[in-house]
Amino acid sequence: MTQNATSLKTLCWCGGLDGYVEMIDQTLLPEKFELLECRDVETVWHAIKRLSVRGAPAIGVAAAMGLVLAIRDTQGDRAAVMERLAQASEYLASSRPTAVNLFWAIERMNRVANESADLDAEGLKNRLLEEAKTIRDEDAAMCRAIGEVGAPLIADGAGILTHCNAGGLATAEFGTALAPIYVAHANGRKLRVFADETRPLLQGSRLTAWELDRAGIDVTVLCDNMAASAMQQGLIDLVITGADRIAANGDVANKIGTYGIAVLANAHNIPFYVAAPSSTFDENTKSGADIPIEMRGDEEVRHGFGRQTAPDNVKCHCPAFDVTPAHLVTALITERGMIQPVSTETVAEVFK
Amino acid sequence: MTQNATSLKTLCWCGGLDGYVEMIDQTLLPEKFELLECRDVETVWHAIKRLSVRGAPAIGVAAAMGLVLAIRDTQGDRAAVMERLAQASEYLASSRPTAVNLFWAIERMNRVANESADLDAEGLKNRLLEEAKTIRDEDAAMCRAIGEVGAPLIADGAGILTHCNAGGLATAEFGTALAPIYVAHANGRKLRVFADETRPLLQGSRLTAWELDRAGIDVTVLCDNMAASAMQQGLIDLVITGADRIAANGDVANKIGTYGIAVLANAHNIPFYVAAPSSTFDENTKSGADIPIEMRGDEEVRHGFGRQTAPDNVKCHCPAFDVTPAHLVTALITERGMIQPVSTETVAEVFK
Repeated sequence: MTQNATSLKTLCWCGGLDGYVEMIDQTLLPEKFELLECRDVETVWHAIKRLSVRGAPAIGVAAAMGLVLAIRDTQGDRAAVMERLAQASEYLASSRPTAVNLFWAIERMNRVANESADLDAEGLKNRLLEEAKTIRDEDAAMCRAIGEVGAPLIADGAGILTHCNAGGLATAEFGTALAPIYVAHANGRKLRVFADETRPLLQGSRLTAWELDRAGIDVTVLCDNMAASAMQQGLIDLVITGADRIAANGDVANKIGTYGIAVLANAHNIPFYVAAPSSTFDENTKSGADIPIEMRGDEEVRHGFGRQTAPDNVKCHCPAFDVTPAHLVTALITERGMIQPVSTETVAEVFK
Repeated sequence: MTQNATSLKTLCWCGGLDGYVEMIDQTLLPEKFELLECRDVETVWHAIKRLSVRGAPAIGVAAAMGLVLAIRDTQGDRAAVMERLAQASEYLASSRPTAVNLFWAIERMNRVANESADLDAEGLKNRLLEEAKTIRDEDAAMCRAIGEVGAPLIADGAGILTHCNAGGLATAEFGTALAPIYVAHANGRKLRVFADETRPLLQGSRLTAWELDRAGIDVTVLCDNMAASAMQQGLIDLVITGADRIAANGDVANKIGTYGIAVLANAHNIPFYVAAPSSTFDENTKSGADIPIEMRGDEEVRHGFGRQTAPDNVKCHCPAFDVTPAHLVTALITERGMIQPVSTETVAEVFK
């Protein structure tokens, strides 16, 4: 597979049933661009485990394709394939037990298998490959739709701040927060993206900067604490971030640092947009107060870059996420359209 | 010299005229605590050059003591000592040509030498040692005074956010922003300090966390982008930072990131204090708009800690400072007292 300049194939299935999964090995970025070929489910398991592939949608796609690798060489009848599918499902689920999309994709593949009781072994194998490709294509289409909805918000010459990586590398292709940027760029609009490096794991400088630069989009990396100064100097016209979960009232849980940017954008009268698929909205989460914040280990702060940066015995504060209240979000950009203003009433439309 | 638990001897002169300069080698922190003995001016020159000693006041003290090391073994009469002093002054000035305090200290030592024309070679040498020690003691006294003025702002049980290192490691002893914290701690108040790691050079996690922990003060390191979330969660009762320059209208230039914290503190109704000696105030700078912002090289963002964190060909935005407008500063804490509210009129008192 060739990787062209504007569309990022984070992972895809190459060939027919005897083919393989090809993915960008994200652990090597930004220093090295290497494609990882997975020809068995074990390689996919390790790729998920060690974050060669990351981002909720991308993990889901990888798991679905991993299941196909597991069953395609199974000898015997349909029952044998179903047994192998069950084994491999359990196995893949253990690769990253907190990734919701991993389970969602595995369940979907199993449901499809159960629903196609009329197919023999060979037919079932092909049906599962088709479903895995569909999961990938649906994700790519969803990203493109978000891009189409969000692109009109980006005026020619705009400066756009983004945080973390809600880009193509987290999805099958276009990303969520970055999708409107890719579409605006493809439409010929001039734009300048500022990518927060996003401590502690630097997804912004390692991944967002890499993928935008590769697509020929003007991108500048800045440390997280430089965003306010960039806003003060008039470099930022709008902010777009992704979301990990959106509550029923429109509160947004996203990568740590997002809330601070929302407050700063508000203080500078800069619109603050959140781009996310409708699957990110959780009707059962009334408000941000109901979202548990995962605390990460001290070591991510203390030994971030292969060097010790804080004393051993000093405590570190390392929440993985923060919650931005709905009133700081100018609009939510989804594949179904824009939600603006953001309130319990307007968000309710997503659940219909 | 023994280093006791509450007073940090960043650098000092040990012994008489045949003594030496002892300083903490800050390049090794936080992994190693090592004292560097300087017995000649060349060692001091290298210590300043490679940032073993840093922070404007500390550099000034190091330069003054370096001049004493240069002249103390000079053979011959007073004229010979004066000639050696001139040579060494030029030499030391080349160690860090942008450090204002370096020149200030060298000029002060030369003025004292010129003014004591009645002294012979030996008398002059002792007079210069006395002056170097005075510069150090004045700095320590100034820091303590700032501490006494600021300490009453810290209630028992307070959570305090600070940024960068305006601590003992940047001065001869107590620091500026950290001085009120040291004094409050010495007075038995319980407190909890949150130290922003302060990208790109991590002075917060490397230096502030180290020196506060060493003094037995409860300190927690957080990434810069976590400050907003900590405020949102009620962990922060007040912010204290240092300043690089304060304009006549009270605008404050300080380490990049300071402005963002001031905006965030304002949005959370948290008082934002700036602690700085009166020498930091510049009557000739009308407002923050007149302060040139030094831009640092991309490499500080791109290769921060021995690992590449952003792609080679991607631009980086790396201002060294930002400017916090006076209206966001609750009060200025100086060795002469508190300035509150902060305005051209109240700041004018400092220049009287």
